[in-house]
Amino acid sequence: MPSHGGQRQAKRADARRNVRAILDAAAVCLSRDPDASVAEIARTAGVGRVTLYGHFASRAELVDAVVTRAIEEGDAALDQVDLSGDARDALVRLVEQSWLTIVQIGSLVTAAFDALSEERMRELHARPMQRAEGLVERGRAEGVFRTDLSATWLVGTLHRLMHGAAAEIEAGRLAPAEAATTIAATALAAFTPPGRPVPEVGALATRERS
Amino acid sequence: MPSHGGQRQAKRADARRNVRAILDAAAVCLSRDPDASVAEIARTAGVGRVTLYGHFASRAELVDAVVTRAIEEGDAALDQVDLSGDARDALVRLVEQSWLTIVQIGSLVTAAFDALSEERMRELHARPMQRAEGLVERGRAEGVFRTDLSATWLVGTLHRLMHGAAAEIEAGRLAPAEAATTIAATALAAFTPPGRPVPEVGALATRERS
Repeated sequence: MPSHGGQRQAKRADARRNVRAILDAAAVCLSRDPDASVAEIARTAGVGRVTLYGHFASRAELVDAVVTRAIEEGDAALDQVDLSGDARDALVRLVEQSWLTIVQIGSLVTAAFDALSEERMRELHARPMQRAEGLVERGRAEGVFRTDLSATWLVGTLHRLMHGAAAEIEAGRLAPAEAATTIAATALAAFTPPGRPVPEVGALATRERS
Repeated sequence: MPSHGGQRQAKRADARRNVRAILDAAAVCLSRDPDASVAEIARTAGVGRVTLYGHFASRAELVDAVVTRAIEEGDAALDQVDLSGDARDALVRLVEQSWLTIVQIGSLVTAAFDALSEERMRELHARPMQRAEGLVERGRAEGVFRTDLSATWLVGTLHRLMHGAAAEIEAGRLAPAEAATTIAATALAAFTPPGRPVPEVGALATRERS
């Protein structure tokens, strides 16, 4: 007969497994349909609704948890991006990985927009924004990004180009495979100091590989 | 004693005056408060609600009429912009006048977003968008705007930069007086073909004046 401590440990392991199954199911269900119900998510996770509500008091709390996890995972991937060297090359790499993250968690974010407050959304965006800000500041200090417009405006422009690409894909006016290059090419040009030549994204990528 | 024809004419003149007063009042009230009520608009116009509803069957119809008039007026101002000569100079002039129009009718558009369908909004945006498209196409044909990204993407980027500037002003991160130059500088850089130098908006304006 197992000790009380052993039972407690087994219960905790069960709970962790359930939470993971619920979050995985929520990610799948909400990506497919931002309006997916708690019942559907519980069914997909193979747990009862009572169990689900034991871990997440409301649908909003569950959406918050799954979006937070997705953003943290995306953020971990972005942490692996090499932001050293020429700030323009680094920007292209950052855009490529950011776009991958957006594609992976895009539908989840749609669900989040409905369920989470604007303030919470801003909180969740803070780290990715800080990373872009840091890179923009470095590029300005090194003279490869323009300083005649504010860093805030440049970072906001990058942000809007990404959202714009998502909207253009949605409208069938941009091929998904071209999105990252289009965003990077536009941002790089927009960031170039007046009087300096606009870099070619292809040329940057080639230089990076060689 | 006036003839029946004379009475009819006087009545028609009255009706025209009332419609103009109602549209002017609606523009003022809705700019101040996008949720302004029909009663408030009638009061400001100095007409009764019955008279107002005699001309506009619903609040949505009134909002449609006042936004349509504002966009047509803005469009008439944009028609006066000289789009000839170097497409880059023309883009700066177009951005400056477009921004003026956006500032003038911006709050009205907020009211419109609530009251009008997305399709109707797209319809009302069609002419300003066509003008920008024509200019972008000419700049591409003449080699001063890039052709490695689609014209649709470039026009959409210009559109998003304008909306972005409005959002940044709203958030207190951009001075209203700097908006037009910021938008024009960013769009010009974004439109520059890779390998070509980014033009200075100031230099363009100087060249234009000299």
